[in-house]
Amino acid sequence: MEVGVCKQEMLQKKNAVLVDGVILNGPIMDSKAGEKFVEEACKIIMEEVVQKADDVTEKVCEWQAPETLKQILDLEMRDTGECHQKLLQLCQDVIRYSVKTSHPRFFNQLYAGIDYYSLVARFITEALNPSVYTYEVSPVFLLVEEAVIKKMIEFIGWEEGDGIFNPGGSVSNMYAMNLARYKFCPEIKEKGLSGLPRLVMFTSEECHYSMKKAASFLGIGTENVYFIRTDERGKMIPEELEKQVQRARKEGSAPFLVCATAGTTVLGAFDPLDKIADICEKHGLWLHVDASWGGSALISRKHCRLLRGIHRADSVAWNPHKMLLAGIQCCALLVKDNSGLLKKCYSAEAAYLFQQDKFYDVSYDTGDKSIQCSRRPDAFKFWLMWKALGTTGLEERVNRALALARYLVEEIKKREGFQLLLEPEFANVCFWYIPPSLREMEDGPEFWQKLHQNGPTGALNMFSGSVKLICLPALNLLLSYEKPQGLSEGS
Amino acid sequence: MEVGVCKQEMLQKKNAVLVDGVILNGPIMDSKAGEKFVEEACKIIMEEVVQKADDVTEKVCEWQAPETLKQILDLEMRDTGECHQKLLQLCQDVIRYSVKTSHPRFFNQLYAGIDYYSLVARFITEALNPSVYTYEVSPVFLLVEEAVIKKMIEFIGWEEGDGIFNPGGSVSNMYAMNLARYKFCPEIKEKGLSGLPRLVMFTSEECHYSMKKAASFLGIGTENVYFIRTDERGKMIPEELEKQVQRARKEGSAPFLVCATAGTTVLGAFDPLDKIADICEKHGLWLHVDASWGGSALISRKHCRLLRGIHRADSVAWNPHKMLLAGIQCCALLVKDNSGLLKKCYSAEAAYLFQQDKFYDVSYDTGDKSIQCSRRPDAFKFWLMWKALGTTGLEERVNRALALARYLVEEIKKREGFQLLLEPEFANVCFWYIPPSLREMEDGPEFWQKLHQNGPTGALNMFSGSVKLICLPALNLLLSYEKPQGLSEGS
Repeated sequence: MEVGVCKQEMLQKKNAVLVDGVILNGPIMDSKAGEKFVEEACKIIMEEVVQKADDVTEKVCEWQAPETLKQILDLEMRDTGECHQKLLQLCQDVIRYSVKTSHPRFFNQLYAGIDYYSLVARFITEALNPSVYTYEVSPVFLLVEEAVIKKMIEFIGWEEGDGIFNPGGSVSNMYAMNLARYKFCPEIKEKGLSGLPRLVMFTSEECHYSMKKAASFLGIGTENVYFIRTDERGKMIPEELEKQVQRARKEGSAPFLVCATAGTTVLGAFDPLDKIADICEKHGLWLHVDASWGGSALISRKHCRLLRGIHRADSVAWNPHKMLLAGIQCCALLVKDNSGLLKKCYSAEAAYLFQQDKFYDVSYDTGDKSIQCSRRPDAFKFWLMWKALGTTGLEERVNRALALARYLVEEIKKREGFQLLLEPEFANVCFWYIPPSLREMEDGPEFWQKLHQNGPTGALNMFSGSVKLICLPALNLLLSYEKPQGLSEGS
Repeated sequence: MEVGVCKQEMLQKKNAVLVDGVILNGPIMDSKAGEKFVEEACKIIMEEVVQKADDVTEKVCEWQAPETLKQILDLEMRDTGECHQKLLQLCQDVIRYSVKTSHPRFFNQLYAGIDYYSLVARFITEALNPSVYTYEVSPVFLLVEEAVIKKMIEFIGWEEGDGIFNPGGSVSNMYAMNLARYKFCPEIKEKGLSGLPRLVMFTSEECHYSMKKAASFLGIGTENVYFIRTDERGKMIPEELEKQVQRARKEGSAPFLVCATAGTTVLGAFDPLDKIADICEKHGLWLHVDASWGGSALISRKHCRLLRGIHRADSVAWNPHKMLLAGIQCCALLVKDNSGLLKKCYSAEAAYLFQQDKFYDVSYDTGDKSIQCSRRPDAFKFWLMWKALGTTGLEERVNRALALARYLVEEIKKREGFQLLLEPEFANVCFWYIPPSLREMEDGPEFWQKLHQNGPTGALNMFSGSVKLICLPALNLLLSYEKPQGLSEGS
């Protein structure tokens, strides 16, 4: 342990300042040894993670059950520290038994792959360890966030706007919900919901589960989320929305918000934004679009039509950490209002942090727009990636993901035992795998029960347990060097 | 631009699979060039950030006003990407104009300094880019989180418990508030607050501003936060709490929660937890302790008495990213209940992600405990640091910070023009700097007005604008190699 050695050395020095048994004027640890440790660990990270990132011959994960993995890893934290050699071995093991989300065959989530530029940006911010609330403490990162938000707003099609990066699409949706509520009735900020009529919001049956979480967290209640029926493609049916708004009004409750989805989690469906916007305008409802997954299509001139009407939204959630590979987490809530609504809604006016008489323009301070105090500079990784690839490079990523989805669909149609659920409009490809034993069976309740009981095996669903409906965002094949082989493995 | 080059090369290959004008079976970028870029950038990060981290001769920040900095940095995102050379220069500039929070003279926040081990952990997780919601996708990081939470619970003094890492102490406080509300009335999750009596919570006047943010966000309303008077040291007065609880009951409102603070932001005050716990027990109120700042004292056998009674709390917020230097953000909400309250309160039962019939014990999945969907593995950086330093190494950090505070107090007392506000009990040292022109003036309204108008200059408040009450967490001197000189610079 370097710390102990340092203390010994320091005690021998004549000028040591000792207070309460602690030497104040010595290093708390040997910084040279620390730097060497960082260098050696970086070598391991480069070799074991970065250089193997797109190597399809590597394993996605060396799977171990929880109890076994606990035994393999030395999880216990002890009184005394470990030597650098042991720690480096530990780092190796952590990498070895972790899932490689950059692997071309990582199909578990709505993200995958590696982007070298955003990775560098993240290394920089980890080393600098900033927090973005005031300009004085994060000058570069606040300006970058402002520039990125401005650019994202351009792609949405608003003339002006505001926004904030925050830790996740779920949180973005919460921000929007609270903002809509504040706009509907600003006194709720001070008075709360007690004694008010029941606030009601609308979203589709296929929406992200964060809608329920948000409604519960914000004190609105999950029962006051009215789920609107969707069509066979998973899109919200505008006529059903209209009916439900009227029902809510008749009940004497207070409709305030519609959350449309642009790119649902399972089917990748896009709600018809223009028609929904008409209804929102008619009834004076805030329109939020959860484009956490589908927002990146805005970058593609070819596919941005999926989000037609998004410029009519009051707020948009968009996660560049998904299809654009900016690294978890990189999530923006964007707001059309430019009159300071975000700040008015979220400010707590902490005098010790957000003084109004600083020596620079305090409108650059973002702390009063946020539910967080410390906040990470998530916009930076998107910015550096954007600088590196240009808009055309980002566009190529989106186009590639959707072309891969198209390719996969054609392959599924050709292959025995696979049944396409529906023609995808985005990167989610949903299909059933029907095991040989069921292929001759007639469609009916018994067939579906058996299909659910006998899960398929193979690479495609190695991480999805017994879910028979497999959603494969083609994005996951982004970095695949060869003809995608997921299907042949699954069969 | 590597992307373009690759495309050209691929198009010449015979086996190219072209869909919608996109070549599917080629790399989206040259990975060798990408890896080289990462290596070169890492070299810059090592030289410019890590190796200079504790160099007191470097600048804390090369300050530029917003408009100037915008001109210096090339913020614009264009259609075409930049070459690696330009990007590396950009990285240099970003580092150059950013605040060095690891600098021994960085005094702006309740954190500072560098820890090499947590930095390595952060590099690993950025490279692996995991999200911690299910065991299948984050096996190592979920086990690590479980182990760290268990250990933190031991230090709180609970026999068992639960917890979750989340993006900030403010969010931890929100979690606790919602949990207390759920415990008080589980139906609120579904029904919301509408029609219910006014829920009231109590916290001290000196609490963190996130209390107000949380009350507003959760629909409780800031007016329903009853601020309890504090004594001259900034501690909540238990008798005042008792009075306010009775007042709330008389008003017909529903008291449900007391948020005590262990380590206030400005004065570093610790509320008397034992006496507050008595009142909570008497009235059946949830006791949450916001120990975001002060929690780390639990690690020190010498200073843990500051939090005496914390084992009686129902929930605790504790940020190892502050005094323990784990890196932003590293924040745990810890809960005494071990009957699944956290899960019951936060679950949305998303069938596509948290299936109950997986091939492993799904109790390891944490998604249903969280308000987030994607979540970062923040426990890991604390874990690797703990493994490296041992509990004694962490304890040494705390003891050193408090010894530095003690030393600073003695220096302030000796030095002309400085006036100690109060004897600190923690690492916050609050004092006034009185400029020479005011030193002969009599105490009174005019004196204070002038003191507020004529701010001091110098290193100590170079980032705190015109705040005259300077709070200097001694923590910031942690890595100082020499006799702390902040004071001589300020005078």
